[in-house]
Amino acid sequence: MRMDNKAYLVQMKSNGVHSRTRTLNAKGLPGNDIHYMSVNGSLCTTKTKSRRQRWEVKPSEMSKNTLNPIRAIVDGMKLVPNPEKPMISLSIGDPTVFGNLPTDATVLQAMKDAIDSHKYNGYAPSVGYLKSRQAVANFYSCPEAPLEAEDVVLTSGCSQAIELAINVLCNPGDNILVPRPGFSLYKTLAVSMGIEVKLYNLLPEKSWEIDLQHMESLIDERTSCLIVTNPSNPCGSVFSKDHLQKILKVASKLCVPILADEIYSDMVFPGCNSSSLASLSSNVPILSCGGLAKRWLVPGWRLGWILIHDRNNIFGSEIRQGLVKLTQRILGACTIVQGALESILNNTPQSFYSDTISFLKSNSEICFKELCSVPGLNPVMPSGAMYLMVGIEMDHYPDFKNDVDFTERLVTEQSVFCLPASAFEYPNFFRIVVTVPEELMLEACARIREFCQHYYRPPSCDGNDLDQ
Amino acid sequence: MRMDNKAYLVQMKSNGVHSRTRTLNAKGLPGNDIHYMSVNGSLCTTKTKSRRQRWEVKPSEMSKNTLNPIRAIVDGMKLVPNPEKPMISLSIGDPTVFGNLPTDATVLQAMKDAIDSHKYNGYAPSVGYLKSRQAVANFYSCPEAPLEAEDVVLTSGCSQAIELAINVLCNPGDNILVPRPGFSLYKTLAVSMGIEVKLYNLLPEKSWEIDLQHMESLIDERTSCLIVTNPSNPCGSVFSKDHLQKILKVASKLCVPILADEIYSDMVFPGCNSSSLASLSSNVPILSCGGLAKRWLVPGWRLGWILIHDRNNIFGSEIRQGLVKLTQRILGACTIVQGALESILNNTPQSFYSDTISFLKSNSEICFKELCSVPGLNPVMPSGAMYLMVGIEMDHYPDFKNDVDFTERLVTEQSVFCLPASAFEYPNFFRIVVTVPEELMLEACARIREFCQHYYRPPSCDGNDLDQ
Ligand SMILES: Cc1ncc(COP(=O)(O)O)c(C=O)c1O
Ligand SMILES: Cc1ncc(COP(=O)(O)O)c(C=O)c1O
Repeated sequence: MRMDNKAYLVQMKSNGVHSRTRTLNAKGLPGNDIHYMSVNGSLCTTKTKSRRQRWEVKPSEMSKNTLNPIRAIVDGMKLVPNPEKPMISLSIGDPTVFGNLPTDATVLQAMKDAIDSHKYNGYAPSVGYLKSRQAVANFYSCPEAPLEAEDVVLTSGCSQAIELAINVLCNPGDNILVPRPGFSLYKTLAVSMGIEVKLYNLLPEKSWEIDLQHMESLIDERTSCLIVTNPSNPCGSVFSKDHLQKILKVASKLCVPILADEIYSDMVFPGCNSSSLASLSSNVPILSCGGLAKRWLVPGWRLGWILIHDRNNIFGSEIRQGLVKLTQRILGACTIVQGALESILNNTPQSFYSDTISFLKSNSEICFKELCSVPGLNPVMPSGAMYLMVGIEMDHYPDFKNDVDFTERLVTEQSVFCLPASAFEYPNFFRIVVTVPEELMLEACARIREFCQHYYRPPSCDGNDLDQ
Repeated sequence: MRMDNKAYLVQMKSNGVHSRTRTLNAKGLPGNDIHYMSVNGSLCTTKTKSRRQRWEVKPSEMSKNTLNPIRAIVDGMKLVPNPEKPMISLSIGDPTVFGNLPTDATVLQAMKDAIDSHKYNGYAPSVGYLKSRQAVANFYSCPEAPLEAEDVVLTSGCSQAIELAINVLCNPGDNILVPRPGFSLYKTLAVSMGIEVKLYNLLPEKSWEIDLQHMESLIDERTSCLIVTNPSNPCGSVFSKDHLQKILKVASKLCVPILADEIYSDMVFPGCNSSSLASLSSNVPILSCGGLAKRWLVPGWRLGWILIHDRNNIFGSEIRQGLVKLTQRILGACTIVQGALESILNNTPQSFYSDTISFLKSNSEICFKELCSVPGLNPVMPSGAMYLMVGIEMDHYPDFKNDVDFTERLVTEQSVFCLPASAFEYPNFFRIVVTVPEELMLEACARIREFCQHYYRPPSCDGNDLDQ
């Protein structure tokens, strides 16, 4: 075949990227998958059309890259409880499942009032009703970090707040810093968007404070956001003012904006002080993500928010506008919940909040105390949120390969399900959700004790077992 | 400076991709933005880190590429109404704005019952409650296109349904086919995701049927989805069975799955027959997107769905799983609305639907009849939905540059706002929303008439004006 005529020949500028090229078939007619390029490199669409001749519908790369580690791990477990013991599930971060922690009556009444008003059935602005944004701004504003309505974006749950925040700050190829152990959604979202995830360590021996040196060592010029979860899921830890200031110092020095996941803000046990990151920041710009899910005990309602803290105008109008644009893609929160928001924030009695926290603290203490005396377990006492992490001295449990194996057998034998912390990138721990009624918490701890006493092997004795 | 020592020197495999390279400074210390590569090309992270020394936070490409044409056009217009005439806005596709089309009492009661049950405050599965999916499946199932609960995914409004459908079917670089004129969200979403949009023409002279030849000519092997909106926004048109079958034939021949935007399904005027695409499809796989927004008159509640129709198993489990994974990114609809859904679908009286449709039809007829006799305007009578398109014979309106100019002046002089159809990629038309109360519709038409009579220039006469 001669190549010197002016037939449609695939020619590409040599740019080192290989692509399928083919010459024409005998008749000079295109095969079905030939791409013709004109001489200047632009596609000649009229002559180049090739069409499918059979069905081949494949899911997109993004859907394939949307990986949920909790599902992946849990779906791979054989979770068949012992039929002789009723199941106690301590695995799901949903405070409503046991029915012992209802939301407040004022919260429900606010919803009914919103329905009866007939005012909240139409489209709201994509960032939410001004009145509702104002209510959130008033609720979270403080002298050190004042907020106006325009600093608030309402979203479909804190999850969408996080998605929007990552989406506005990061391009594919950038990286974000995420705590280990940490809430898995950050990685799920980032990976699906082509953003690299770098895990910085939390230190259990320091009440899960951040290993700041490690965190700093991971930051490079493609780091577009640092995620800080405080109070923490899965740890239940609450950072001190001093530690928060040190985090801000690193972010400030290396010029990295912060996504503060503060969905558990104010869910802090009495006696422990907590601050929002923004209230301590003098220059680091912060997108603080929150919502009704946890503190108001209505995670299904999907009402979240982003609070934009940007005192030095580093985000500027560009990031704000970017957020607004992204909200226009699918619109956010249900208008009935938006309509109820002002009343929810202003009228929920203090006793509701403090009762919830007292309960969580008391349950945490029970669980911590019980498990402290179990051989080979190292619970870490939380200071807030609704979780407690327990270290497993795997050396002393030679019957189990890892935390997944351990928690699986805990279900099979004792009908108690705790999430293996591999789901949070933290093997050899498991997470307990402390929202369960007290008697079930006690029962669960008793069963965990029985299980552990059965399998525990003391150090350097019982040569029989260690020999193998 | 010598280059032959073993100092840290930037070396990259020549792969045609240029990158900033620099040698060391005098002291052999790295400058801040030097990237070091080890010999085998992998990054030596410990020595290579370059870090930001000043703040530069820029919005992501995706947020910059999220373009809302309606906002872009409307924000560019000077919309100052005539202070002597109260404003009548016929521009927003929200049937609730005038208060004359409330949702049904049973719909509100269903919400209150869901709240009172205390059963719908926790997290639902990411695809929605099984019971609610079952209710949607039952509601839309028909012998030709049967549906089970597993064929239904609940979403945050029809917008999220569309977003998920595009997201699961398309990769960046693919293209989708979208009607012109058409709902702008398709393009907004696709462009933000790096998906190319090809516009196929609708033919006003054929009641906005698709120019099938044109549509077919646009399809190539990167076409991953064909969007069909029926009934149509902005046209109010409803395709005949025969036309739907022809669309399916093209899709079948060229093996392109269909995203059927059927948010206005069943909003069809009496005397006009309408079918869902799926009920006529023997092999083409279809994702049908819908929701409560329009037919139940509650767009703010953000409850939508995808119905998966795949009789020949062309989507297979892969697309289904892809959809499930994507729903896990941010979770969808508010659980209170989900909890109310079964009752909303089963208990809303037929009279509610038919009353709404009678009203929309009557208002459309009034508007059509009034504008038919206005010189230089060509309204197209709709058969459903809640819109009516009006052609402007721009030749006869030499005072105005285009539809945007025309509708802007209609606001300034007559305080009537209609959306210029440039917002739907269709210049020289404007769209009227027919949900306004009858007396306002009549008043608006009268003002449009006055405006047109003032500016209309008859053909080939009045040389004065035409000379210019
Ligand atoms: C740390 C953290 N952030 C965000 C979320 C998501 O909150 P939402 O349910 O409002 O999307 C959760 C839920 O468990 C969480 O633990
Ligand atoms: C054709 C079409 N599809 C989808 C939508 C979006 O519906 P939702 O409000 O449920 O997101 C609209 C809204 O106007 C529409 O006109």
